[in-house]
Amino acid sequence: MISTTSIPDYSDVLAAAARIKGAAHETPVLTSTTADALSGANLFFKAENFQRIGAFKFRGAYNAIAALSDDERARGVVTYSSGNHAQAVALASRLLGCAATIIMPSDAPAVKMAATKGYGGTIRTYDRYKENREAIGTALAEEKGMTLIPPYDHPQVIAGQGTAAKELLETVGTLDMLIAPLGGGGLLGGTALAAKAINPSISVIGVEPEAGNDGQQSFRSGKIVEIAVPKTLADGAMTTHLGQHNFPIISDLVDDIVTVGDRDLVRAMAFFLERLKIVVEPTGCLAAAAALFGIAPVKGKRVGIIISGGNIDITRIGELIASQA
Amino acid sequence: MISTTSIPDYSDVLAAAARIKGAAHETPVLTSTTADALSGANLFFKAENFQRIGAFKFRGAYNAIAALSDDERARGVVTYSSGNHAQAVALASRLLGCAATIIMPSDAPAVKMAATKGYGGTIRTYDRYKENREAIGTALAEEKGMTLIPPYDHPQVIAGQGTAAKELLETVGTLDMLIAPLGGGGLLGGTALAAKAINPSISVIGVEPEAGNDGQQSFRSGKIVEIAVPKTLADGAMTTHLGQHNFPIISDLVDDIVTVGDRDLVRAMAFFLERLKIVVEPTGCLAAAAALFGIAPVKGKRVGIIISGGNIDITRIGELIASQA
Repeated sequence: MISTTSIPDYSDVLAAAARIKGAAHETPVLTSTTADALSGANLFFKAENFQRIGAFKFRGAYNAIAALSDDERARGVVTYSSGNHAQAVALASRLLGCAATIIMPSDAPAVKMAATKGYGGTIRTYDRYKENREAIGTALAEEKGMTLIPPYDHPQVIAGQGTAAKELLETVGTLDMLIAPLGGGGLLGGTALAAKAINPSISVIGVEPEAGNDGQQSFRSGKIVEIAVPKTLADGAMTTHLGQHNFPIISDLVDDIVTVGDRDLVRAMAFFLERLKIVVEPTGCLAAAAALFGIAPVKGKRVGIIISGGNIDITRIGELIASQA
Repeated sequence: MISTTSIPDYSDVLAAAARIKGAAHETPVLTSTTADALSGANLFFKAENFQRIGAFKFRGAYNAIAALSDDERARGVVTYSSGNHAQAVALASRLLGCAATIIMPSDAPAVKMAATKGYGGTIRTYDRYKENREAIGTALAEEKGMTLIPPYDHPQVIAGQGTAAKELLETVGTLDMLIAPLGGGGLLGGTALAAKAINPSISVIGVEPEAGNDGQQSFRSGKIVEIAVPKTLADGAMTTHLGQHNFPIISDLVDDIVTVGDRDLVRAMAFFLERLKIVVEPTGCLAAAAALFGIAPVKGKRVGIIISGGNIDITRIGELIASQA
């Protein structure tokens, strides 16, 4: 088993897949003739909005907590998260019989806070623009003997997130390209590990919000670049820097990182609602927007798209659609 | 093969299933622990919002047009519809190489009109509150030698709609109860034919909008009761009377008909958006609302729910949610 300071590889994704089997959903892969016509490609959408807690984050959180010793689980876990990882840790902890404390930004979407409480997590809020969530989490972990389960900078979290790409490739076979959203690099890192191991010639593309392109800057400059908290509709990708465990994988295995503006995220969200009849949160639209609107070079290719999640206040859906009318 | 004046039976559902195979989607069956907790039952949602054209109507329309002779198809088809049947006839006709004229109410949702045109149908509008769509359709059919494919009062349409219940029961096994929306009786009639043949002890329940309970009145009085055009959010169930082919089946095989108010339809729509991450149109929420909000006697039972469709203007979603806030 990997230590918590090492960089994971595909064997860790395989171990994660075995660990989450039966606990996580094997989410469906959706296709759409309209999406294919619009993109000029053959698109396969891995619908992690149908994952438990409504996002891929359940995979990594469950894997990380299941990999702890009984003694570690008895002392409980703590995490910080802008939303979906919070719910993921809360639910995974409940399923694994473990107490969870969640440090959430005070401006996190109400639906995500309510769901986290509903899963039995204890919430502690902080100011996203003034306080340092890592410091609060580390202090709490030390003080109470809890294990910190960070949202992306952790080998078992990365390995768990890679199981979505593994399932997708096992379902649809060889792809020319796989596109995934990029925040801190948990999903993109795991996706690259799985995709390149299963299908070495595949092209792996990460997609960031335009306002928060620290990953693209880091990828191009060869070192982790830190930015101010970006203001974007993609609230799951408001990270300021890639993780120490994530950057080397992304640097080695990812082929390119592109960016998408908020307006295209809303266009993609509307497309999903209207055509595929599914709810996708703005962050979950990153990869699809890049494929649908000519940002990633998908034409003529078989392309996997990871829809990362569907957690959005339903009143917010109406506001966002109205803002574009 | 059945004549167009006879009442269909389960053998016609089996023939329809063979005819639509490969053309219609085998839609997924969704489950939700939250829905089960809310209803006190074990609910299985047959997601016909993921059917081609976004609603079950494709099944019946394709079956009816595929069952025509080559000569009949060469002369084209005509239909009248408040929306989903229009798109269904337009797409099925295109797939089967046949011209289609669609008579639509002038106040039909814009998304349904646009989609119908997009599938290559020729639209003729009429005033839902002043003109008689059956008369317009019959006149057009006679004048141009086209075949009329009515939205529900037709044995092949009923048989086609029954294939959804057949798939659901084949997927999940024995159920105690199956609940379907009721407008003119195509879906409920076909559902009852399939369900009672496969699972004779199953209870089949139809659900109408409160404002348009002609089916409930007809079921209870033993004869077809006609009402004024009901005003309800369930625009797919604004029918004024059951069909001649539908009523005998419903009368013989359906166990009860209940009604749901518009407010509960919006509550169910919000539940689907927020919890299942899917878009369901108000008419498509009829059966689910009856199960979720204590209207149908589902407690302790294994219950199939037909989600009939997902075609709703996305701006309308926001308006409806806001109207309840």
